[in-house]
Amino acid sequence: MRIRILGSGAGGGFPQWNCNCANCRAVRAGAPGFLPRTQSSLAVSANGEDWLLLNASPDLREQIAAAPELSPRRDDPVRASPIKAVALTNGDVDHVAGLLNLREAQPFNIYAARRVIDALAANPIFSILQPQLVPRIELAMETPTSVSGASVDLGLSLRAFPVPGKIALYLEDRNAPNFGTSAGDTLGLEVIETATGASFFYVPGCAQVDAPLAARLRHAALVFFDGTLFEEEEMIRQGLMGKTGSRMGHINMSGEDGSLAAFTPLDVKRKIYVHINNSNPVLDEHSNAYATVQAAGWEVGEDGMEVIL
Amino acid sequence: MRIRILGSGAGGGFPQWNCNCANCRAVRAGAPGFLPRTQSSLAVSANGEDWLLLNASPDLREQIAAAPELSPRRDDPVRASPIKAVALTNGDVDHVAGLLNLREAQPFNIYAARRVIDALAANPIFSILQPQLVPRIELAMETPTSVSGASVDLGLSLRAFPVPGKIALYLEDRNAPNFGTSAGDTLGLEVIETATGASFFYVPGCAQVDAPLAARLRHAALVFFDGTLFEEEEMIRQGLMGKTGSRMGHINMSGEDGSLAAFTPLDVKRKIYVHINNSNPVLDEHSNAYATVQAAGWEVGEDGMEVIL
Repeated sequence: MRIRILGSGAGGGFPQWNCNCANCRAVRAGAPGFLPRTQSSLAVSANGEDWLLLNASPDLREQIAAAPELSPRRDDPVRASPIKAVALTNGDVDHVAGLLNLREAQPFNIYAARRVIDALAANPIFSILQPQLVPRIELAMETPTSVSGASVDLGLSLRAFPVPGKIALYLEDRNAPNFGTSAGDTLGLEVIETATGASFFYVPGCAQVDAPLAARLRHAALVFFDGTLFEEEEMIRQGLMGKTGSRMGHINMSGEDGSLAAFTPLDVKRKIYVHINNSNPVLDEHSNAYATVQAAGWEVGEDGMEVIL
Repeated sequence: MRIRILGSGAGGGFPQWNCNCANCRAVRAGAPGFLPRTQSSLAVSANGEDWLLLNASPDLREQIAAAPELSPRRDDPVRASPIKAVALTNGDVDHVAGLLNLREAQPFNIYAARRVIDALAANPIFSILQPQLVPRIELAMETPTSVSGASVDLGLSLRAFPVPGKIALYLEDRNAPNFGTSAGDTLGLEVIETATGASFFYVPGCAQVDAPLAARLRHAALVFFDGTLFEEEEMIRQGLMGKTGSRMGHINMSGEDGSLAAFTPLDVKRKIYVHINNSNPVLDEHSNAYATVQAAGWEVGEDGMEVIL
C-alpha cells in the first residue's frame, strides 16, 4: 500500500486564517523549523493508480494539485480521476467540506457512518454530488467493508470502529449529554490491503485511548493518530479559545492520560501524529515538545509525507 | 480603492480536478501561456487595512495565504482578521463554500440576497458561523447598502441589482420554469467608495447583457464580468458536459449575443474577465481567442492581479 498524507493539520490548517499565535506568526514569516500544513486528509492506494481518500478536507483542491498521482493521466478520457472513493471518520467541517471540491459529475463512492451520511443528506448543498453518481455507503462497525468506486475494486477494505469522541460542532445539542454524541460520530478505521492482509490504523480524532482501543492497536504496524493538542489546556492558556481538548473531543499528547503515555506499552511499529492543531508546540521543530514526541518514537506528520506498507 | 483578484477561475478552477481537456493538460504540465487559476473571488479595500470579499470560493484558504494583506498583522491580537465582510452574488458552491473556511469564532458580516441567505440557513453546516458573530444582512436591490463588519465601517457601499441568470445547481427545480430561478438568484454589484463616490461593477455570473444592464454599465470606470465561456457550445464540443452556456446561466464572449459585442458600444474604461472556465480558449495566451479579447480592449483576469481605482 502507498499512503500519502495530503494534510497533517487540524481544522483551520497551519497557519489558521484568523490566528496570530506564536506558531502561526512564525510559519507565516517562514521561520526555520515551521512547515505550513493543510487540513486533515490521507490518500491510500493498493495499486498506485486508484486512490481512496481518508476524509475530504476543505483544502482538497490544493492537496490534489500537490499530488500528481491524484490528477487524470495524460491518456485518460477527457473527464477522469484516480480518486475512486472517500471514507469519512466524522462529520466535521475539516473532514467533509472537501466533498464540495469533488463535484462536476464524476463517479466515486462515499463511505461513512449512518449518522454522517444523514448529516450530509440534511445539507442540500451536498446534493451537488448526485447520489446516482456518488453513492453513500454505510460503513458497518467491526465487519470489513470492501472499497470500490466508479466500477473499480480498490483492493482495500475498511474495518470501522467507534472511538471516544464528540459529534461535529455544527451538530452539537447543548442540552444533551456530551452534546448529543452517539457511537459512530467519531470513527477509527483499519485499512486492510486485500491481497496481503497488511493493515494500518487511521484515528484522526479521539478523546481517549480506552482499553478496547489500546487492545486493538497493540502490535500494529502503523498508526496515524490524533495529534491535535500537546496539552489539555493549551488553547485556553494561549488565549485562543475557552475550550479544553476534551471539550473538543481530542486527547492531548502529554501527561498521564495523554497519547504518548497510552501508546508506550502498545508496541506499535510506526506511529505518526496527524490532525495537528496550530496551537501545538510540536509544530516548532526546535521545541521541547517536538523532542519529547521524537524521543517517544513518534513522527510528526507533514503534508506530502509518503509511507509504503 | 484597492481591488485584488483572489481567484479568476470558474467553478472547479484551472485545472479542474477531474478534467483532462487540452487546457487542463497544458496547465498541469506547466506549458507557457497557461496560468493556474483558483475559483471566483475578489477582495476590495478602501483603506488598505480592512477588506470586503466579493464571494467566498472553496479555495479561500489558499487565496488568503497568497495575499499577505488578508492575514493578521504581527501586532494584531491573538485572534484577528483584516477580512471584515463577505458579499455573495449567488448561492453557487464556487461562491459560498469558502464561508466554511471563515469559521473559528471570528466576527464578520455576510451580505447577500434573501434567497441566498435562506439557502445558507437551509444547510446546517453553515451554522458553524454563529449568527451572533456572523450576521447575515440582506442586500436591498438598487438602494446602496453600506458595508461594515466586526464593528468597523469599511468606507464602502454595495448597490445590488438582479441580472439575467440561473439559480444554483444544487437548488434547481427541474419541473419549474428556468429551474425555479427568481429575481435575485444572480446579482451584480456596484461597489462604491463612500469618500469619493468612485465605483466599479462586479458581475461574475450573467446570462445576457440586456438593455437595463447595458444602460447601467455605460461609461463605467471598471467592470469585472462573467468570462465563463468563449462559445455557447464549447463544453459540448470538447466532450466535457452536455450543457450550453445559457443552460448554465452564463453568456459567452464571442458571437452576436456575446459579451464582446454587447460591450462594444458601452464605453467602459477598463473591462476584466473573471470566472473563466477551464474550457475557455482565452486561458491559452497564444490562442486566437486571447488575441480577440485583447484587441477588443478586454483583460483576461489572473489570480493576484491588483487594480487601484
